[in-house]
Amino acid sequence: MVITFEGIDGSGKSTQVDLLAEWLRMKGKKVATFREPGGTIITEKIRTILLTKGAEELSDKTELLLFLAARNHLITTKLIPLLETDTIVVLDRFSDSTLAYQGYGRGIDLDVIQQLLKFSVNQLVPSVTFYIDMCFTDAVNRLVSSTKKLDRFESLGEDFFDKVRNGYIELQKNDPNRILSISGNKTIEEIHSFVTKELERKFSSLI
Amino acid sequence: MVITFEGIDGSGKSTQVDLLAEWLRMKGKKVATFREPGGTIITEKIRTILLTKGAEELSDKTELLLFLAARNHLITTKLIPLLETDTIVVLDRFSDSTLAYQGYGRGIDLDVIQQLLKFSVNQLVPSVTFYIDMCFTDAVNRLVSSTKKLDRFESLGEDFFDKVRNGYIELQKNDPNRILSISGNKTIEEIHSFVTKELERKFSSLI
Repeated sequence: MVITFEGIDGSGKSTQVDLLAEWLRMKGKKVATFREPGGTIITEKIRTILLTKGAEELSDKTELLLFLAARNHLITTKLIPLLETDTIVVLDRFSDSTLAYQGYGRGIDLDVIQQLLKFSVNQLVPSVTFYIDMCFTDAVNRLVSSTKKLDRFESLGEDFFDKVRNGYIELQKNDPNRILSISGNKTIEEIHSFVTKELERKFSSLI
Repeated sequence: MVITFEGIDGSGKSTQVDLLAEWLRMKGKKVATFREPGGTIITEKIRTILLTKGAEELSDKTELLLFLAARNHLITTKLIPLLETDTIVVLDRFSDSTLAYQGYGRGIDLDVIQQLLKFSVNQLVPSVTFYIDMCFTDAVNRLVSSTKKLDRFESLGEDFFDKVRNGYIELQKNDPNRILSISGNKTIEEIHSFVTKELERKFSSLI
């Protein structure tokens, strides 16, 4: 079982990933969490290339290919072996991020991205995806109030994140059974409670 | 104008790249040389991931996506700007390596690779490609006699390099106008002389 969290930077995904993992472990489940890109030695190196604001500009295509390389590596080295041992995998971002950011955000043709995803994700579709919906202004306020320096994506402006958000909303509309949307303006506890209730409802025999 | 050199590891490409660049400069041409993957801060980082024998195995697909990311980055940040200033670009490996190594060598479907190349190389086809043909035994003897440690590719065995070599031979047969083949068992001077004569013959007005 693969559970993914999606949303723009600053929407509160990683907090929910941690809370859900804790909740699943309390229920006696084996759980593994990963952030994307990341989670292995090589994918963390790719993450650094992707998120660092450096001297060299990354083209949209290079960016996309690096995300896909990192995802393929995470899937083959971690996710597939874990899923074979009945571990529930909780991911902070997955393929929907690619469609929302590199497709709707950067403007790369969505059909081309779908073909590239087909090649790189080996048919791995999340069992359920929680999309935390938040507008740019609220998300950026959260990011700015945190102490860490903004990365390459977090520094992009309102126009970009509006496109990404609209992309997520579109993706959710096209796949409402898999992608469940919740407002990121609710409290952490309310969102967590929504997530656990939906999981109990959808996967009552498993969770 | 883009001139590429191709061949299995140890076939003597980089020596020929250097000799050709020197010859072109002597003729008053602006020349830039790059090895692939490499040539920029980011692509050298990708090169390290690709060539280092590390704790994490790279899948064939991850490997392919990383090569394509590096190539796209080199093209957008270096090759296109250089070509706009009439610089002759000489490359140690390019798209034919992807077809020979990841296609014929690793066994990824050639049509899939062609589609991925179409996406990542922005229609950049070399003006001419010199394929230095050499069998595994001769190439590995050269590599072993050099002082450097063998990298992730160079450590692959005879079976793999036989497939790569047969791939190159096939590619050359399918595109004999662009890809010119020469035996890597000839002397360095003989190969260099073949290269310069062919360039003078094919591009008499330019060189």
